Amino acid sequence: MLGTMLYGPRDVRCEEVPAPQILEPTDAIIRLSATCICGSDLWPYRGLNEITAPMAMGHEYCGIVEEVGSAVKSVRPGQFVVGSFCLSDNTCPHCRFGFQSSCEKREFMTGAQAPLARVPLADGTLVATPEPPAEDLIPSLLAVSDVLGTGWYAAYAARVQPGSTVVVVGDGAVGLMGVLAARQMDAGRIIAMSRHKNRQDLALEFGATDIISERGEAGIARVKELTANVGADAVLECVGTKESMDQALEAARPGSMIGYVGVPHGVEFDGQRLFFLQRGLLGGPAPVRRFLPDLIDLVLERKINPGKVFDLTLPLTDAAEGYRAMDERRAIKTLLRV
Amino acid sequence: MLGTMLYGPRDVRCEEVPAPQILEPTDAIIRLSATCICGSDLWPYRGLNEITAPMAMGHEYCGIVEEVGSAVKSVRPGQFVVGSFCLSDNTCPHCRFGFQSSCEKREFMTGAQAPLARVPLADGTLVATPEPPAEDLIPSLLAVSDVLGTGWYAAYAARVQPGSTVVVVGDGAVGLMGVLAARQMDAGRIIAMSRHKNRQDLALEFGATDIISERGEAGIARVKELTANVGADAVLECVGTKESMDQALEAARPGSMIGYVGVPHGVEFDGQRLFFLQRGLLGGPAPVRRFLPDLIDLVLERKINPGKVFDLTLPLTDAAEGYRAMDERRAIKTLLRV
Repeated sequence: MLGTMLYGPRDVRCEEVPAPQILEPTDAIIRLSATCICGSDLWPYRGLNEITAPMAMGHEYCGIVEEVGSAVKSVRPGQFVVGSFCLSDNTCPHCRFGFQSSCEKREFMTGAQAPLARVPLADGTLVATPEPPAEDLIPSLLAVSDVLGTGWYAAYAARVQPGSTVVVVGDGAVGLMGVLAARQMDAGRIIAMSRHKNRQDLALEFGATDIISERGEAGIARVKELTANVGADAVLECVGTKESMDQALEAARPGSMIGYVGVPHGVEFDGQRLFFLQRGLLGGPAPVRRFLPDLIDLVLERKINPGKVFDLTLPLTDAAEGYRAMDERRAIKTLLRV
Repeated sequence: MLGTMLYGPRDVRCEEVPAPQILEPTDAIIRLSATCICGSDLWPYRGLNEITAPMAMGHEYCGIVEEVGSAVKSVRPGQFVVGSFCLSDNTCPHCRFGFQSSCEKREFMTGAQAPLARVPLADGTLVATPEPPAEDLIPSLLAVSDVLGTGWYAAYAARVQPGSTVVVVGDGAVGLMGVLAARQMDAGRIIAMSRHKNRQDLALEFGATDIISERGEAGIARVKELTANVGADAVLECVGTKESMDQALEAARPGSMIGYVGVPHGVEFDGQRLFFLQRGLLGGPAPVRRFLPDLIDLVLERKINPGKVFDLTLPLTDAAEGYRAMDERRAIKTLLRV
C-alpha cells in the first residue's frame, strides 16, 4: 500500500510501504476514511526534531475496523471508529483519572497517513459510532481524533467557565478548535489572536467575538484594552514557542490558568516570575480519549462542524504538497483522501 | 517604640524606631497582640535577597485597632482585627476574582515585628472579630494572617478534594499548615515529607496520615510505594528551592496540580519537561484575604489550632535569637511577645 514517510527536513514521500499487520492481540487494523497532516508534523518536517530513521507519518484517523487482535473486545470489524493520537489502555490509574494521554502504556500513533493503519491498545483507544456516519461528517470526525480534542483540552485546562473572557494564542488549526471549544463551554468573550484574514474569518465562524491582529507588546496592549486592563480569565496557548507562551502569560490575569497544548520548543519558565505573575499552567498531550464520546456526539448531532478547519484536500499521493502548503501557511490544515 | 530591623545577612536588631503614623487616609494603626517571624524572613536574613537599606521586618499581625485614617470605614478603634501580609483594596478586579495578593494596589506589609504597625489599605485588608478573642486564641489568629493562609492557599491551588491523596513537600511552618488545610478539606491521605521528629509529630497531630523521612530519589520512591506507583492527586510545594520543586514534580501524578507557595529561588521549569510530565502549577503569594473570614471562624470555633506551629515564644527584644533559632532549625516558628 502507499504510506507517507519523512526522510529528513522537508523530505516527505508517499511511497510503497508494507501493509500493517496485527502484532499484538490488543491491536486493530483500520481502513481509514480520511487522514490528515498535523501542525505537530511540521516540527520534524522543519528539522526541529532530529530524524534518525525514516518516520511513518500520521496520527489522526477515523475509519472502518478491518481486523482485530484476539484480545480486542470493544470494537469489531465493520464498525466505524474514531481514536485518539495518544494510545491508551483506558483502565490504568492515569486513564481513570482522565489523563489517558499519560497512560502507563501510552504510545503515540504513527503511520496513519496511509489507507490502512495499525491501532495498538484498540479497546482503550477507539470509540465506535452506532452506525457508519454520513460521508460529509468524515472531516469533522477526523478532526475529533486530535486537533479538536487538543483544542478542547486547552480550554478544559484553562478552566473556561460560562461567561469567561478567553484569549486564544495561535491561529493554527488547534487554536481555531480552541475557539470552538470555548464557544461550546459558553465563554462570554473569545479573543482570537490572528494575523491572517482567512483564519480570522474562521475564528469568527467558530465563535470568536474579537480578533487581535497585533503581536508581541502591541498584542498584549490590545488584550489589556479589550479587558479593561485586567487580562483574560482563561488563556489557550496553542503554539509552543517562547513568543507565544510569553504572549499567553501576559494576556492572562492573576489567578487564571493557561492551558498549553503546543509542544513547547525553547520554552522555559522562571519560577519566581511565574510566582509573582500568579499564572497557573496545565498542559501536555491532550487526553483526547476522555472527550471522544462527547465530541463524536456533538459532530453526529451536527452541533459543531470542526471539519471546516480543513481548507485543503489532496489525494494521499500529494502528501508532500500538503506539507508544503501548511509549512508555507498557504493551508491551515490538509485533509488527505486515501 | 521598639522595632525589628534587618541590617544585613544575619544582622537583625531590635532597636528604637519611630512609632508608625497614619500616612494615608486609608491607613490604620494597630496595636499588635503578638507578632512572629516568617520562614520568608529567612531569605534576606540568609543573604539570599539583596539588602540595600535597613529593612523593617515583620508582616504577620493581629491586634487592636488604635487609630484609623479618615477614609477607613470597615474597622474602628478598639476592634480586634486580623490582616493579610498582602495589603489589598479588596475591590479591584483581581481582588474580586479572589486573588487579593495580586491586587492592583498591592503592597506587602512591613514593620509588624513591633508593638504598633501601620496597615495601609485597612478597609480591604483587615477583618474584625465580633469581639476581642480569648487570650489563648491569639497565636492561632496570628497564624491565620500568613502561615495558615499560605498553607491553605497551597491546598486550594493544588485542588485538594475530599478523598485526595496529598503530598506536602516541606516541613516548615507553611508545610505543616498545608497538612492542616488538607485535613480540613477532607483529603483521604496526607503524606508529609519531613526529616525532623518534632515536625513529624506536629504533622501527625495536624492530620498527616503518613510520614516520609527520605529525600530526593529515595523520597520519590517512597511516594511511589505509598501510592501504588501512581503519585499524588495534589502536591503542596512549601519550600521554594530547586530540590523541593523537583520533589513536588516527581511526587505528583499526571494531570494533578502542584500548589506552590515557597518563593522560588533558583527554580526553572523546562517547558517540554513540564508538558510531558503533565503536571499543573498554580502558586504565588497567597490571597489570604479571601480565606480570612472562614479561617478566623474556624479558630474562634476552636475547630483548628494552627497556633501550635509556634514552638518558641520570645519577647520582642530577643527577636535576634528568634531568627537564629529558626535559621538553625531549632525552632519551627517563633512567636514574639510585644
